[in-house]
Amino acid sequence: MRLIRGLTLVSVLLSLATVAQAQTLSAKVSAWRQKNETAIVGQLADAISIRSIAVDPAGLDAQADRLKAHLDQRGFKTDLLAANGSPKVVFGRYDTPGARRTVVFYAHYDGQPVAPRDWRSDPFVPTLRTGLGVDAAEISDWRTGARPLDPEWRLFGRGAADDKAAIVAFLAAFDALKAVGKRPSINIIVFWEGEEEAGSPHLPAILAAHRDRLKADLWLIGDAPVHQSRTPTLYFGVRGVMALDMTLYGPRRPLHSGHYGNWAPNPAARLAQVIAEMRAPDGRVLIPGFSNGAQPPSAAEKAAIDALPPVDADIRREIGVAAPESEEGLTLSTQRPALNVRGLSAGQVGDQAQGAIPSQAQAAFDIRLVPGQSPDAVRASVETFLTKRGWTLLDGPPSEADRAAHPQLMRLKWSGGYRALRSDMTTPTSRAVIAAANRAAGRPVALLPMMGGSVPLNMFEDALDAPLIGLPIGNHDNNQHAADENLRLANLWDGIGLYAAMMADLSW
Amino acid sequence: MRLIRGLTLVSVLLSLATVAQAQTLSAKVSAWRQKNETAIVGQLADAISIRSIAVDPAGLDAQADRLKAHLDQRGFKTDLLAANGSPKVVFGRYDTPGARRTVVFYAHYDGQPVAPRDWRSDPFVPTLRTGLGVDAAEISDWRTGARPLDPEWRLFGRGAADDKAAIVAFLAAFDALKAVGKRPSINIIVFWEGEEEAGSPHLPAILAAHRDRLKADLWLIGDAPVHQSRTPTLYFGVRGVMALDMTLYGPRRPLHSGHYGNWAPNPAARLAQVIAEMRAPDGRVLIPGFSNGAQPPSAAEKAAIDALPPVDADIRREIGVAAPESEEGLTLSTQRPALNVRGLSAGQVGDQAQGAIPSQAQAAFDIRLVPGQSPDAVRASVETFLTKRGWTLLDGPPSEADRAAHPQLMRLKWSGGYRALRSDMTTPTSRAVIAAANRAAGRPVALLPMMGGSVPLNMFEDALDAPLIGLPIGNHDNNQHAADENLRLANLWDGIGLYAAMMADLSW
Repeated sequence: MRLIRGLTLVSVLLSLATVAQAQTLSAKVSAWRQKNETAIVGQLADAISIRSIAVDPAGLDAQADRLKAHLDQRGFKTDLLAANGSPKVVFGRYDTPGARRTVVFYAHYDGQPVAPRDWRSDPFVPTLRTGLGVDAAEISDWRTGARPLDPEWRLFGRGAADDKAAIVAFLAAFDALKAVGKRPSINIIVFWEGEEEAGSPHLPAILAAHRDRLKADLWLIGDAPVHQSRTPTLYFGVRGVMALDMTLYGPRRPLHSGHYGNWAPNPAARLAQVIAEMRAPDGRVLIPGFSNGAQPPSAAEKAAIDALPPVDADIRREIGVAAPESEEGLTLSTQRPALNVRGLSAGQVGDQAQGAIPSQAQAAFDIRLVPGQSPDAVRASVETFLTKRGWTLLDGPPSEADRAAHPQLMRLKWSGGYRALRSDMTTPTSRAVIAAANRAAGRPVALLPMMGGSVPLNMFEDALDAPLIGLPIGNHDNNQHAADENLRLANLWDGIGLYAAMMADLSW
Repeated sequence: MRLIRGLTLVSVLLSLATVAQAQTLSAKVSAWRQKNETAIVGQLADAISIRSIAVDPAGLDAQADRLKAHLDQRGFKTDLLAANGSPKVVFGRYDTPGARRTVVFYAHYDGQPVAPRDWRSDPFVPTLRTGLGVDAAEISDWRTGARPLDPEWRLFGRGAADDKAAIVAFLAAFDALKAVGKRPSINIIVFWEGEEEAGSPHLPAILAAHRDRLKADLWLIGDAPVHQSRTPTLYFGVRGVMALDMTLYGPRRPLHSGHYGNWAPNPAARLAQVIAEMRAPDGRVLIPGFSNGAQPPSAAEKAAIDALPPVDADIRREIGVAAPESEEGLTLSTQRPALNVRGLSAGQVGDQAQGAIPSQAQAAFDIRLVPGQSPDAVRASVETFLTKRGWTLLDGPPSEADRAAHPQLMRLKWSGGYRALRSDMTTPTSRAVIAAANRAAGRPVALLPMMGGSVPLNMFEDALDAPLIGLPIGNHDNNQHAADENLRLANLWDGIGLYAAMMADLSW
């Protein structure tokens, strides 16, 4: 805590000369934004209208072309980067004469797939509402500019927050700087990709192929939500993630539970047993070796977490739970390795339930990694544990020979593993970004040493030699990846201020 | 074992005088049946063609009318019994002058609901095939009588085994006796109900209303499958059953597992924990008090189980498991109380899995009771256990107040509870039935003290004052309650012999 306060103090001292000017900048950007709110929200609405999701290549192309044109109009040198037919990365470069630093602004323009029946309105028809709840009213006349936009209103649509908001904030911030006559302090590179929600399979190849053009002093990652306190936020790392799908095999076909129960093995009961052996009620992972090498937060990082505005009680109310799984607090608990049970399936439940022993039982997990863990080592620890508990591990459904030979048959399907990343919050670069963000927000921003969520920042770390800092915009309750994704307008306004500061008030 | 052998010996001695005659009867019935096989299978096919399932009242009525007509034609005094608009019970009485004993033949003419897409052919279009497997060929010309029916062939259709086979066996046995000039030795009552698969909700009222007409010395229950060795079978009891559906509540909506995992309670992980606390890997129920009062099999009953033909190794091969859940053997393991996990559901698995903490998790259980356990006491033991483990038990989804006040919320939905029943195998009535069955089969039949499955025989026990003995027909692999229900023809032939013996070779 003392260290963080010290850092803030240092930042303030260092920037003492520019404070008056920066506050002026922030105020000017804010004033320009207030005059242009309808147009800015209109830009976000236009971005939502284009179906840029992984299953719609035409929509991805249209979105990329449109964003490239936006950069062209603003004087960027642009290109569309791809590898092996991948969705295109919108690349842009804007050089500032005399600038010593180059900063890359990353975001993705693709959104998660949608299940339209779960949405209140079409996910690609942007809809402004007075709030998040089902009782929120639609504002149908907002485009006329006849009345001011309430900052608590939310624009609904796929990608509204994740990440089209970051792209719109960038463009609006750039326009604001031009309008108020403020030159960028850095060379700007834009890197907007189109397949993040599909796991960025071509990203490493694209980064490697364009390594020279992507040489920079800093990457700012415009992804993920801000802190639940709604304070503007910087994050310095992300947990890694990997997924595991586990299927336990019982009798070849469902069996009458009366005639065969207690004798024929029940894969649903065994699955429950396996999960209980792997994970304690407070979330601790019980698998030996699973957390080997996991690095806990440093004293400075713990202090940063302690300094975050308290939100736990509010979130408990918001999500409707009386007590958390562990007592250490929301943010600290997400700094640990995690084994999350995300799905269970066996037989039937409710009115469909039948008096049968299911023939198989399935569980889906995601595993969150912290620095020091590798996906390979975690996988090995899980497989060793299961093997020691008597499980025969399979790559596919059991053969007749498997069934005859092995009493405990389990299929494992691993996917999507990547490491965590946690940048040093105390480097000159980090301190400069914190200082600029604080000036833009007019208050200390929330500093997260490592987000609980995952973004494959390791791909950038592996390919490039530049620090990465997260610059999120979306509200935490944006329903990212789910139905009714939305952006709270106040978050967009905060984001425009932050982006303008990163372009014109950043120096180290 | 000694006792059972003794019993068999006693039976043989007691029936010494009638052995020659009985064998003659058995041979005569068998010869008549061989001449009429196509017609008999045709009767079963006709019964299958009528959609007598709970959701189709018209089909139930048509079936009841048809069965009543069958009894009318054979000289029975018939009636249709109902209570409060229930499906009709087909009642029939055939008095034998001078008979001292009256025996009721129970079966049900309704079948389980169907999911036609899971069937190889329409569940109400009877289809004869050479066997059970997917490679079994259809015999389309069997009705012409051009070739003999192979006893290993199977007739597919809803209700083929459960219980239309019992009804057809009864009618064919009655016809056989008439054809061979053998008078029944007892007064015969028929009681064929039409809502067993819906839990027989009106049965207690109907039994109470017609108690006088149903006065008898013995009820023979034509339900359930024979022993897995395919030996003709008598059973002297059934386990009770009750069902429990359990829903655990986590956050109000699914939450991002990265941002909230390890802090927001995960109901899927907690469900696994609860199940593992309730049930040991070998099936033993760990809930204190759950098995209070449960009566183990007597020495005679254990001996009867030891005397059963060994089937475990065959069944393990048939169901494709290398080792059973418990080592005590199939039949003995089904004499214990059981807690079967029949379904699990939470979030999504496989390709649909998302990085989320599910908002709820659901499990379906069935509980099998043995004599000495009552559904109320079992329910109380489960609820006490869960309450002691910190669970707040609800009747429905949690209210906002529930969510705010209680950290562990669980909804319990109980249904369908009834007690077990286990009749004494050593009474004169039981010994007479065993002896007649042995004579009909020409070998010792399989004697099951208590089936693992459940039939609400307690309803008869509560309403009537007569012993109940199970007289099953269907093959154990009849896919009862599932897709591709079928009857192996040899089982029908055995059943006709047994039914004829019960009508004409039973005396005590």
